[in-house]
Amino acid sequence: MKEKFKQLAQQYKSELLDNVIPFWLEKSLDKEFGGYFTCLDRDGTVFDTDKFVWLQGREVWMFAFLYNHLEKKQEWLDAAILGAEFLREHGHDGEYNFYFSLSRDGTPQVEPYNIFSNTFAAMAFGQLSIATGSREYAEIAKKAFDRVVARFDNPKGRWSKASPKARPMKAFALPMIVCNLALEIEPLIEPEFLKNAIEKSVHLVMDEFYRPEVGPGLIVEHLNSDGTLADNMDGRLLNPGHMIESTWFMMDLGERLNRPELIEKAVKISLNALEYGWDEKYDGIFYFMDRLGRPLQQLEWDQKLWWVHIETLIALLKGYRLTKNPKCWEWFERVHAYAWSHFKDEKYPEWFGYLNRRGEPLLSLKGGKWKGCFHVPRGLYQCWRQLEMLANEA
Amino acid sequence: MKEKFKQLAQQYKSELLDNVIPFWLEKSLDKEFGGYFTCLDRDGTVFDTDKFVWLQGREVWMFAFLYNHLEKKQEWLDAAILGAEFLREHGHDGEYNFYFSLSRDGTPQVEPYNIFSNTFAAMAFGQLSIATGSREYAEIAKKAFDRVVARFDNPKGRWSKASPKARPMKAFALPMIVCNLALEIEPLIEPEFLKNAIEKSVHLVMDEFYRPEVGPGLIVEHLNSDGTLADNMDGRLLNPGHMIESTWFMMDLGERLNRPELIEKAVKISLNALEYGWDEKYDGIFYFMDRLGRPLQQLEWDQKLWWVHIETLIALLKGYRLTKNPKCWEWFERVHAYAWSHFKDEKYPEWFGYLNRRGEPLLSLKGGKWKGCFHVPRGLYQCWRQLEMLANEA
Repeated sequence: MKEKFKQLAQQYKSELLDNVIPFWLEKSLDKEFGGYFTCLDRDGTVFDTDKFVWLQGREVWMFAFLYNHLEKKQEWLDAAILGAEFLREHGHDGEYNFYFSLSRDGTPQVEPYNIFSNTFAAMAFGQLSIATGSREYAEIAKKAFDRVVARFDNPKGRWSKASPKARPMKAFALPMIVCNLALEIEPLIEPEFLKNAIEKSVHLVMDEFYRPEVGPGLIVEHLNSDGTLADNMDGRLLNPGHMIESTWFMMDLGERLNRPELIEKAVKISLNALEYGWDEKYDGIFYFMDRLGRPLQQLEWDQKLWWVHIETLIALLKGYRLTKNPKCWEWFERVHAYAWSHFKDEKYPEWFGYLNRRGEPLLSLKGGKWKGCFHVPRGLYQCWRQLEMLANEA
Repeated sequence: MKEKFKQLAQQYKSELLDNVIPFWLEKSLDKEFGGYFTCLDRDGTVFDTDKFVWLQGREVWMFAFLYNHLEKKQEWLDAAILGAEFLREHGHDGEYNFYFSLSRDGTPQVEPYNIFSNTFAAMAFGQLSIATGSREYAEIAKKAFDRVVARFDNPKGRWSKASPKARPMKAFALPMIVCNLALEIEPLIEPEFLKNAIEKSVHLVMDEFYRPEVGPGLIVEHLNSDGTLADNMDGRLLNPGHMIESTWFMMDLGERLNRPELIEKAVKISLNALEYGWDEKYDGIFYFMDRLGRPLQQLEWDQKLWWVHIETLIALLKGYRLTKNPKCWEWFERVHAYAWSHFKDEKYPEWFGYLNRRGEPLLSLKGGKWKGCFHVPRGLYQCWRQLEMLANEA
């Protein structure tokens, strides 16, 4: 296997460094107004100049991460700072609630209703503070994170459309992201506080949202606030990609905290979710499912999304490296073959984001409102590193 | 052609009265809590009990309309009252702002952020006040409409996520619906007020949102508030079904107000929109398009939706009856063939709502969060009547 691991590691590394990262460096930097263009068509043409704060933050993070973990390239640091300065100046409301979107020049367009603008800003400024040693960036990361903590139990706040009399529900997405964010900003946070935040989020994901009684043991997207399963559209919703992405965050935490039982459980959920979410007819992983098999409100339910498949590759490689469960490797080979033959664009750099059920591109874009410089390069990096470790072990 | 018109009229009439209306009467009435179930799977099984106010109002309207226009059937009147009483008691916040959704027992779930809950409530109580002579229902219709008027320039109000500094935009959907609503509630409104509301809405739709410079002359979904075209995702958005539905509202107004030039323009837009929105590869009409051909944010853009095709059939038959433009008839035959062979379910009553680009059912449901007892029966009724008039003329 050593040769196979090495060859695959090279494939992921080369795709990252020779194809994907140059694409974003060349096409996405807005040298006039700062920040990044993320609405990039197949060949990199900018088709819209609005700036979505999730993606601004994630691109800052990506370049700062590569600078910190791979090579001290000035070009990467400059690219990260270009986005960070734009976000510092225009990205938030003065109290570190980060907007959802801005126009090209930084004028706020959509209010800070979406808490994930803050989680990705915290990740961005956290990584960049390590790269630069800037205390100001560290402060911004901390303040962005403080707002996440403050809004944790009611993230939508005044932008919620739920009636005060509505069934109280809670969502999986935020504790899941906090599990990843916690390790990202570890150096900036009081250890005791961080430990509690991690424990709370791991408990929510692995004990509450993980439901052994759902199919083969799966994570649901929403629960009643008392922790029981809800029989309504939100309560029946499953998002296999979300489940699987969360399992590699858990594996990272399991390694960091030396908790092998957390890793074992995460690998099991990952395989369950993949078997449950796999489209036996056309291959690929469904975007949304209903835990009782009922019709969904999401019209995009059967589509095959880039991030779902890339996060799955990461989870399978981490799971294989950590447990040597042969099912992880079998599934990795299957998902790897699907992803590279369907998402990778042979004509222009970067990967397609949205395929229909049959695996045909549904949109020509390489970046948009939700796809930026994040899942593809992060996934290529993570897979490359896992494969390299596997090769070194073999 | 007389025989052809007669035979087609019979086909639409029979589908309405022998297939679709019995389905809703049998499957959707919630005799325990009042109101209607609209989440109905392929065979009519209730798969979710939440009650979406758009669809509650539309079903009240449909049964009251049939009672008023077709036959004084007690069963239809009772069905309309079942929904109206539920809405009267649970549907609004006390000030006639209608909620977006309720649980089965009427507990509000989603706040009155969506102005169309009010437009459909006004239609519902307006028709039912005619059927019953109830002054209370007429009052509710008027109050629901008053809130539409009050919120016309800022319909989302406190639920808007737009930043106060955001580019000011305006949307086509509300004036379009008001053009239809105006004739619906004509008896309840001061003539002078109604005339102004109609003039304002017709002007918005036919002069402002209609843009001769877009493709062959199309209606855009959003404009800058100064009336100029906007080059952003909302500003580039086209919705062919929306455009075409609005044209038959215009034809109705043109007939009612005796304005043939309005009819001529509406027919022209209708044909432009249809030619622009038709999928030459797999047939059917696209759901969303970008006026500059750029990638869309709507992942469902290439799907074929029931209401788009049914509203098109109405527009083509009205256009043909009023202008005898042969293109209307040619297109009617083409869209009729597509709709009946793809949306109609041969195994169970009612029509599929959501098809993928290739015309295969994407969801098995006959009713859901957005599909209820409305577009299919209204469309069957409207087409039947147009065909009957054509037969009588021939």
